[in-house]
Amino acid sequence: MFQRHSMGCSAHTTNSPASVPSFIREQVEVGRKDGYWIEAFPFRTSDKTGQNLIGYGLGSYGSPSNIEMFINPRNPKNKTPTWNRRPLASLEFPVAMAYADITGNGFNDVIITDRYGSSMNDIWPDGGRVSWLENTGDINASNWKRHTIGSSPGMHRIGVGHFTRKDRIQICAVPIVVKSSDFTTPAPVIIYTQPDHPKNSFDLWPAECVMTRTLVHELVVIPDPQGGLDRVLLAGRDGVDFIWFERGNWEIFNVGRGLSKDAHPNSPYWGAGSAAVGRVDDDYAGYVGSSEGLHGNTVSVYTKSRKSKHGIIDLEWKRHVLHDFGPLNDGFTGSIHQVVCADIDGDGTDELLVAMMGSEPPSFDKTGVWCFKPIDLEKGKFSMIKLSNESAGRIAVADYSSNGHLDFSTISYSVPGYFESPNCAINGYSAVGITAEKLQNEVCFRVPRPATTRFVSEVEFLDVAARKLTLVVLPPNTTYKVPAGSGVKVMFGVVSWDDNTTGRNEKRVLATKPFSRVEMTVHNDHVQSEDEGAIFVLFKKSSNAIQPPYENMKQVVARNIIPEPYPVQVRAMSFPWVKVEDAPWANGRFKGLEFYNLVGFHVRYADDSDDVIAHIQLWTAGVGVSAGFHNHVEKSFCEIHACIVNGTGHGGMRWAKVADDKFNPDKPNLDDTGLVVVPALHEHGPLWHTGLDGLPLLRKNDTVDYPWHAWLAGDKSPNGMQSYDVWVAFEFPSFDTFGDHPTSLLSGSFSIKSNAAGFIGLKDESATDGTPVLAGLAPQEWKIIRVDGTNLYQIKHVKTGSLLASRWPPVEGQSLMGTHSPANMSLTSSWSIDKHPSGEISLRLVATKGLALSYKKYGHLAVTPVILENHIDTVEAPKWQLVPVYD
Amino acid sequence: MFQRHSMGCSAHTTNSPASVPSFIREQVEVGRKDGYWIEAFPFRTSDKTGQNLIGYGLGSYGSPSNIEMFINPRNPKNKTPTWNRRPLASLEFPVAMAYADITGNGFNDVIITDRYGSSMNDIWPDGGRVSWLENTGDINASNWKRHTIGSSPGMHRIGVGHFTRKDRIQICAVPIVVKSSDFTTPAPVIIYTQPDHPKNSFDLWPAECVMTRTLVHELVVIPDPQGGLDRVLLAGRDGVDFIWFERGNWEIFNVGRGLSKDAHPNSPYWGAGSAAVGRVDDDYAGYVGSSEGLHGNTVSVYTKSRKSKHGIIDLEWKRHVLHDFGPLNDGFTGSIHQVVCADIDGDGTDELLVAMMGSEPPSFDKTGVWCFKPIDLEKGKFSMIKLSNESAGRIAVADYSSNGHLDFSTISYSVPGYFESPNCAINGYSAVGITAEKLQNEVCFRVPRPATTRFVSEVEFLDVAARKLTLVVLPPNTTYKVPAGSGVKVMFGVVSWDDNTTGRNEKRVLATKPFSRVEMTVHNDHVQSEDEGAIFVLFKKSSNAIQPPYENMKQVVARNIIPEPYPVQVRAMSFPWVKVEDAPWANGRFKGLEFYNLVGFHVRYADDSDDVIAHIQLWTAGVGVSAGFHNHVEKSFCEIHACIVNGTGHGGMRWAKVADDKFNPDKPNLDDTGLVVVPALHEHGPLWHTGLDGLPLLRKNDTVDYPWHAWLAGDKSPNGMQSYDVWVAFEFPSFDTFGDHPTSLLSGSFSIKSNAAGFIGLKDESATDGTPVLAGLAPQEWKIIRVDGTNLYQIKHVKTGSLLASRWPPVEGQSLMGTHSPANMSLTSSWSIDKHPSGEISLRLVATKGLALSYKKYGHLAVTPVILENHIDTVEAPKWQLVPVYD
Ligand SMILES: [Mg+2]
Ligand SMILES: [Mg+2]
Ligand SMILES: [Zn+2]
Ligand SMILES: [Zn+2]
Ligand SMILES: [Zn+2]
Ligand SMILES: [Zn+2]
Ligand SMILES: [Zn+2]
Ligand SMILES: [Zn+2]
Repeated sequence: MFQRHSMGCSAHTTNSPASVPSFIREQVEVGRKDGYWIEAFPFRTSDKTGQNLIGYGLGSYGSPSNIEMFINPRNPKNKTPTWNRRPLASLEFPVAMAYADITGNGFNDVIITDRYGSSMNDIWPDGGRVSWLENTGDINASNWKRHTIGSSPGMHRIGVGHFTRKDRIQICAVPIVVKSSDFTTPAPVIIYTQPDHPKNSFDLWPAECVMTRTLVHELVVIPDPQGGLDRVLLAGRDGVDFIWFERGNWEIFNVGRGLSKDAHPNSPYWGAGSAAVGRVDDDYAGYVGSSEGLHGNTVSVYTKSRKSKHGIIDLEWKRHVLHDFGPLNDGFTGSIHQVVCADIDGDGTDELLVAMMGSEPPSFDKTGVWCFKPIDLEKGKFSMIKLSNESAGRIAVADYSSNGHLDFSTISYSVPGYFESPNCAINGYSAVGITAEKLQNEVCFRVPRPATTRFVSEVEFLDVAARKLTLVVLPPNTTYKVPAGSGVKVMFGVVSWDDNTTGRNEKRVLATKPFSRVEMTVHNDHVQSEDEGAIFVLFKKSSNAIQPPYENMKQVVARNIIPEPYPVQVRAMSFPWVKVEDAPWANGRFKGLEFYNLVGFHVRYADDSDDVIAHIQLWTAGVGVSAGFHNHVEKSFCEIHACIVNGTGHGGMRWAKVADDKFNPDKPNLDDTGLVVVPALHEHGPLWHTGLDGLPLLRKNDTVDYPWHAWLAGDKSPNGMQSYDVWVAFEFPSFDTFGDHPTSLLSGSFSIKSNAAGFIGLKDESATDGTPVLAGLAPQEWKIIRVDGTNLYQIKHVKTGSLLASRWPPVEGQSLMGTHSPANMSLTSSWSIDKHPSGEISLRLVATKGLALSYKKYGHLAVTPVILENHIDTVEAPKWQLVPVYD
Repeated sequence: MFQRHSMGCSAHTTNSPASVPSFIREQVEVGRKDGYWIEAFPFRTSDKTGQNLIGYGLGSYGSPSNIEMFINPRNPKNKTPTWNRRPLASLEFPVAMAYADITGNGFNDVIITDRYGSSMNDIWPDGGRVSWLENTGDINASNWKRHTIGSSPGMHRIGVGHFTRKDRIQICAVPIVVKSSDFTTPAPVIIYTQPDHPKNSFDLWPAECVMTRTLVHELVVIPDPQGGLDRVLLAGRDGVDFIWFERGNWEIFNVGRGLSKDAHPNSPYWGAGSAAVGRVDDDYAGYVGSSEGLHGNTVSVYTKSRKSKHGIIDLEWKRHVLHDFGPLNDGFTGSIHQVVCADIDGDGTDELLVAMMGSEPPSFDKTGVWCFKPIDLEKGKFSMIKLSNESAGRIAVADYSSNGHLDFSTISYSVPGYFESPNCAINGYSAVGITAEKLQNEVCFRVPRPATTRFVSEVEFLDVAARKLTLVVLPPNTTYKVPAGSGVKVMFGVVSWDDNTTGRNEKRVLATKPFSRVEMTVHNDHVQSEDEGAIFVLFKKSSNAIQPPYENMKQVVARNIIPEPYPVQVRAMSFPWVKVEDAPWANGRFKGLEFYNLVGFHVRYADDSDDVIAHIQLWTAGVGVSAGFHNHVEKSFCEIHACIVNGTGHGGMRWAKVADDKFNPDKPNLDDTGLVVVPALHEHGPLWHTGLDGLPLLRKNDTVDYPWHAWLAGDKSPNGMQSYDVWVAFEFPSFDTFGDHPTSLLSGSFSIKSNAAGFIGLKDESATDGTPVLAGLAPQEWKIIRVDGTNLYQIKHVKTGSLLASRWPPVEGQSLMGTHSPANMSLTSSWSIDKHPSGEISLRLVATKGLALSYKKYGHLAVTPVILENHIDTVEAPKWQLVPVYD
């Protein structure tokens, strides 16, 4: 009997792989002459996010390259409306840069190589200079003062760190070749060390050649997780090498040889072209990614066995080719120029991003940034998804918008004489969880499934009636700050908080109890999602807006507040109030009524299901106005209204309590109606007809069966003036709500047993859908999960994630199975549970009079099938014991 | 009794306004220094479509403007992969151009003005030259030979035509000002007439000043519909003038004065800046559109009363301001630079397109092309929709892709020193009816509602199993050519053709009769849509593909054939076959089965409803493979399979004929199943349970109630080898299909009467939804329309478009009404009609046992309510006479 303590706390059951965010492109600079390097440049050493950009090309003979800094408009410290340009220097054939605060003034200085030459076959013999440009801290200054550090012909990559000593800034600098067209002579790996007064002396920095490497095309500084000296990862003809300084000596460890020499017999480019170290949870080197051949077409990765220790040195690395983008051109080069590792989906494991410059003839696949996401590291299994479609010489990953999501920026690779990408530009790609698309007059938002996102995503979209409507997606078990006085309307999952006024832990779900209402306001400064995560609209107070009550519609003008980086055509949309009599669907009705409509927002899932979550539209009604009794016989949905302003305090929903044919919607007899007043920041519960256990009743034409119902404004406002109700309609696909049968509060993980039949479990604990559920097995762990917004529970098999479900159809004697594909509204996998004084429970399958969880009684057999048995009133349903499972 | 002959032919009832197509942007040239003029240039006089582009800016001192021709890659005669550039000339300050075949060699020569000066305050006193550039017919030639025509300082607009004589090419040329900064002296309207040997003489063309006009900024040549001399429309400070040569004299008619002088007291710009003539059906001048102030912000239109005659001269034109884009800048200028009229939605009425250059500070609304679409001309009511978002100095409308849809192209307005648009570019905008968007691995197509489009729209999207799948949308009553051997799967409406094999008029609808099958192949070379229009997938033969049978899956590789101008990221998508056991939803099932899946294509409506039409995915199964018995309890849809390849000839759908609980889907007893073999190019009918009149039966969890069913491949292929079935699944939202009650064939328009109660009609013939239907009125015309794919009819009130519908709920005694908002599956507005030998009919409301159309019998009243009355078997349902309506 294994014991695992999880009584009362719902183990984190959602382990769906994280979904990669979408990236919205923004042009930083178009119409460039050329492009090579892009760097996320923290102007201030304190800028951990909101970095500026530095981008430049190689330039050409007669037109030296402008090293330009682009000021980040999303960093509030910068106060610039767009990516304004600052020319820092004009250099001949600059190649690589890094940065460090050499002067110690809190502003990073730029360290840059130049005088390289126009190509590997035109290396300036006295070039390969390394300089630093002095950042005085004035963000508007241009032409920063240049100081020479040293030089070595063919200088190509540099990195800053403390390589041999902690007290001085050092630069590791490596030429790619030592002289034109000499691809064989190894080049020196040089360490420059900061002199005493770098600012005002003209001496070069002390330089030391610590080893030699051939055709190095990538250099990445790898900090020591224990805070020791920095190490360096090199990619070149020798493959991927890891070098470090230890006890007075420079050491080298070869992670892998990369592309073998005879892969392309006549090609001078084998080994690796770029490399990066991928973090996996707390191991900074869970894998090493690389691209192969100098500018090759192969993406590969080095992985280690799950049991091996953290880090890189002396471990056994196995090379896997992830993808080959196709044949090289006749110069033996392809399209990959750089790989970087970054955890862009927030799941604690780095993804491998691959920068592709494009090709001649053009190819969509070989142009832009691909993301390789680890699926099974040991087997070298990664998934591939394209993030951007514009040429990328390099990728600069940073949280430019300081919202906790990593963004990235690229510069087109365009080197005259080698490869000139059309439309050479610098592009910024902002990560968003929620995308927004213009239909015609409405917007379509697409959101991630909460279980697959690790980020909080939010988009403010409409400022109306002193409320800012914000679409929010929370991952599971995540806390989210809400401004005081905000209201919450849930569209998926659960949002809960400890309410300072009611003193209770308030829970909000898709809909409260039918024909009732519940307050939306959160009396606390944060809310919490639960196991399923949550999608909701937050109604934030819009302080500087005109506050209710509203005497005329001009005070209720809605403002589009969809922010950057969403596309301008979405941000420029207007959402006017249309008098309903003028609406295209009015067809002569609603004449003269103070009744207005505002459309509209579709909310869907951002996966290939494109499933609908809800359609949202707004309504207003003047004093004494009825929005008209209707019953949705035209279109099927389950509609919940959230009130923002109750003009009279008496506005709300009325529904006919008599049969459809006993009520005349055109001359309604209000005595035959029920009323739920919906005060401001309240929502009402389901008003449609429901059957057993809260399932919606349906009409023959597949529409949810509604009684006649309508929103009616109150008769008189306190001051007798006009005073508009303003409410938001959430139209959901049909869903199951609270049934009449109350439920006992249960949660936690248990093994489930009956004295007669023993423990129930999945045959062979198999995860295959349809696996029979048997009684009499060794105990297996089941988790009891409340089905949000109902009085029902799901029973989830912890090991396999399968749900305890009846096979179809749910009839007397039907057997039970495990499945990951539940019926719609979990018709075969939701249970109404009664808790008996003894602590035992009995389980009735949803929407059945009395089909209870039972077992076939074979006298002789130890293991018997678990089945449904009819237990209507007469014979008591079988009782099951919940045996807590302790860790 | 009015008589209108329409017996037997269904009058064209769909009169929904036409929807404007979507426009997909394609960059023709980016990174331009400047931009001013763009022209659709027919290189050959025969190029009615597929024109090239000519674009240029004003240039600046020291850098004259390159007049560049861009060769249209979509014109097959040009054989160029992209818009390749040809420099035609380098001119100083060119402004306007036109074209004509001056040399008569069948190739248009370019007529162009230059030496204007850098602005209206820097007019070259000896400039304003008019020249023509000689087109030799060699599309690769550059620097075309220039010939001088004449000059007049400040030359700004020209037009080509026969103004005073039909036998020689003439040019109407008008300077905007006669000298720098002189906005008051009227400028000459000059007519140049082609000399005898324009090619080889250096003489200037004879020129004649026919009148003077002030600050003319637009000149449009207006052909005479009766083939007479060409006329000219001028827009300038004098407003909008129409000038023409008649009986030896130049005449002028002022359409309107445009913006009044005192609208902006200190502004030098009043009157009009641009103008265009809008065709309405067969009146070439249904309205005159214009922009006001020289570069103003006002869009206005001149309309005439409906009764006035065609044309412009001597008619009463009323000016309406359609939109004001906001305050002018301190130079009294705004953002509109040109207006053109073009019928881009194909409804026979021109729309007014407005080119907006942008503004400082930038504004989304004032940048790009707006489309103003006439709604009610007499009232000057137009709707506004934005077509493009990039700066537009001018718009060049033409069918560049030669597909029958008008496209357009723009050049950014960028004149140094006046207004320099960022990202100055030439953009092409291709009109498409169907848009395509990448989700993740699936595509989302959006299509117009057939009743609102006047174009045939089609997109080839997948080449698989020797078939090219093509999504097609037909407007109502439209013929569409289909290649021999093509198959049709309808997704909306009706497609019919006279079949050469069956000799019958074959009709295909959403689904054929339940549990049956029907051939999809069209044995004719065209098909026809009916009143509702149609949406369907055409299965064209893919001749050069590997033909079935298919022994291995490599022969069934699907190719993405989505064409330009669809976005590259959609065209680059791949659609791989995934072995079902490896699918994410397999969850351990289907192990080792030769069963593959290919996803997928969502098809929706392109309006704000975003309603689903269908989801499409493909499947293959090897010999002897069952795709697995299932019943869609997880997700609700009505699924129809269209077979492309039947590997054994015996593959098809089986369904359980016994109750759900009597059939074990894991160990199916085939004796308890029905089978419909689905040969290649056949589809099967509904397999779900249906109730009375074909309505789908539903389960409690709002899913369509299916028996267990599965696709099963045949046991053995003819040659005993592996031989895959390939079929396409169309997943539709629930819909009504053929019920058991057969129907009599009826169509046409009638007034409907019963001897006892008289004619039935809408009270006051009101179009308001809910208007009562009464008996005993004067005859009103009703059209009987078959509800496609059912045995039911709708009865549509011709005058108001209302449907004869029961109020809710449909019960004994319920009254009838007219409505434009029918219930879902037209539950209250579909009728099962029995035709009696007498020719009379009786009407039973859908899905009711016997609620028939009847009337309340009040002895004394002449007019009585039409109601539903119960007539189950016993008393015969009331009979109604159909009185044909003859024109
Ligand atoms: Mg960010
Ligand atoms: Mg076209
Ligand atoms: Zn490189
Ligand atoms: Zn990650
Ligand atoms: Zn409602
Ligand atoms: Zn102009
Ligand atoms: Zn039109
Ligand atoms: Zn099926």
